Amino acid sequence: MSASASITKPSNAKRFVLAARPVGFPQESDFRLEEAPLPDLQPGQILLKTLWLSVDPYMRGRISGIKSYAAPVEIGGTMVGGAVGEVVESRFDGLQPGDVVEAYSGWQEYAVMDGKQARKLDPSLAPVQTALGVLGMPGLTAYFGLIDICAPKAGETVVVSGAAGAVGSIVGQIAKALGCRVVGVAGEDDKIEWLVKECGFDAAFNYKKVTDYRAEFQKLCPGGVDCYFDNVGGPITDGLWPLLNVHARVCICGQISQYNNTQVEMGPRNLGQLIVSRAKVQGMLVSDYAPRFAEGLKALAGWLREGKIQWRETVVEGFENTPKAFLQLLRGANTGKMLVKA
Amino acid sequence: MSASASITKPSNAKRFVLAARPVGFPQESDFRLEEAPLPDLQPGQILLKTLWLSVDPYMRGRISGIKSYAAPVEIGGTMVGGAVGEVVESRFDGLQPGDVVEAYSGWQEYAVMDGKQARKLDPSLAPVQTALGVLGMPGLTAYFGLIDICAPKAGETVVVSGAAGAVGSIVGQIAKALGCRVVGVAGEDDKIEWLVKECGFDAAFNYKKVTDYRAEFQKLCPGGVDCYFDNVGGPITDGLWPLLNVHARVCICGQISQYNNTQVEMGPRNLGQLIVSRAKVQGMLVSDYAPRFAEGLKALAGWLREGKIQWRETVVEGFENTPKAFLQLLRGANTGKMLVKA
Repeated sequence: MSASASITKPSNAKRFVLAARPVGFPQESDFRLEEAPLPDLQPGQILLKTLWLSVDPYMRGRISGIKSYAAPVEIGGTMVGGAVGEVVESRFDGLQPGDVVEAYSGWQEYAVMDGKQARKLDPSLAPVQTALGVLGMPGLTAYFGLIDICAPKAGETVVVSGAAGAVGSIVGQIAKALGCRVVGVAGEDDKIEWLVKECGFDAAFNYKKVTDYRAEFQKLCPGGVDCYFDNVGGPITDGLWPLLNVHARVCICGQISQYNNTQVEMGPRNLGQLIVSRAKVQGMLVSDYAPRFAEGLKALAGWLREGKIQWRETVVEGFENTPKAFLQLLRGANTGKMLVKA
Repeated sequence: MSASASITKPSNAKRFVLAARPVGFPQESDFRLEEAPLPDLQPGQILLKTLWLSVDPYMRGRISGIKSYAAPVEIGGTMVGGAVGEVVESRFDGLQPGDVVEAYSGWQEYAVMDGKQARKLDPSLAPVQTALGVLGMPGLTAYFGLIDICAPKAGETVVVSGAAGAVGSIVGQIAKALGCRVVGVAGEDDKIEWLVKECGFDAAFNYKKVTDYRAEFQKLCPGGVDCYFDNVGGPITDGLWPLLNVHARVCICGQISQYNNTQVEMGPRNLGQLIVSRAKVQGMLVSDYAPRFAEGLKALAGWLREGKIQWRETVVEGFENTPKAFLQLLRGANTGKMLVKA
């Protein structure tokens, strides 16, 4: 990366701040592009130039203003998010200009941050933006949610909703690598084709073209469902619920069908079915597994090397299009990881 | 029991059969009293005279005709259920006339069954009907649901719905014995008084006199909820859900608020809150723990001896009142175990 090592620190840099709390589906105007001077580095800090930005479904929760597992972004505050950046200046011993890192540096063109909070990447091992996808938070979410909560055994049936997304596509492929029957749910025909033809899913269906989800799951999962990795929630989950086998395991990773509701949606009360199935339903958050990230990355890298995991990315060009990319993600426009190339 | 050992086998005996599948709340006319000749004993069989009958919420599921974890009772079939009976005749080596046993012999005045399916009781250890309560299925349900699924630690807050019932009252007292803060929900003021004054609950409330369950739980559980043992479901569970602490554990043991619905009730979709709390929600069925029943009974007997578990029973007199007792149970008329003294 010798060419980029010559980047010099600009006096001002752009960033997106939260302009308004979205009501319902977010709009571009909920974010505002600002330009601000870059502070001088303090000891231990680094200056990053953002190369890639990650947009993810969890960000919808961060801008809602509701207390959740993490503090909300305040109005006027810089939008949070993962990124891959190049070190431009460093007062941190472990990093040099030209190094490429993954960091939770937010929607900023340039970011000043503690060097110890950045993870140095080896660009010779994999394209650096995979640190935001299969070899980053989404891959680790897939790994720990599936391995730790669903704990599938060879021969079992695993269903994944949001199956063509950054997390879902990895979940399904890990489950295939473990010898499971894998059924995916996604929202576009070309996603279904990708899942079945390239990712090795045994079956998948386009939920926008199916009205009776329960009947579709019955058709595609004749032996019932042992594991359900849910990114979506709502009527898809309702349809799957009666198919849960005895002692089935459900990982609630996301509920994207609900994120833009202006009021709580009503659905059938079906907790009683858990008594019939004695199923376990567990919410998961990847940060709980931080002490085991090395284990997860090693396993994911191994499956990548063996060709057992395919990955795709949907790239939006230009830092200033970050809010647009985020809205496209919420609409399901991506196959695989949604990224912004800054 | 020398007096009863003189019982002689009658030629005919009464039993209740299912006359109709209830729609909504069951009626007495859904059951029919019949009299039928008693067959001769085959080798290995015993003849029991029923002393005590158990009526339990799970029976509502058995008469619904819907396939569940167990086969439904057929129309015209003898109603199932646990009972305590005295052996009148025996062609089974392990049991003699005069022995008292617990058996799944159904709503029958007399029952012919395999001797090996009966559990011999020691009347000197505890009143024999406790084999249908604290030292039987309800006690074991409380024990394994709490210990295995909720796994409470000293100092944690445990909430129990249906708290004054045969299962709930034991759950709360075990949790107290383990050093937890225990909050109960029940439906009569005298049940609340019993829970707090005699069973040692830290707090309890009458859900029929509270409109905002969430606010009530917030008041009674200032540190949130670590374990929730649910026998009821519906709006009580909705109100508790936002209180679940990080890594909380929920045991879905019953959903009695839903059993008599004629159509699936709608409620707020709140699985997404499990991501915030990373809570685990698991359905339980006591029969899954059969290999560990000895462990459970030993622990329960120990707490009984130490005076750490109080138990109550609500007794309806007369075999012919068994359907009435069942309907009273579904209306919550019992404190502690609901029994029929035959």
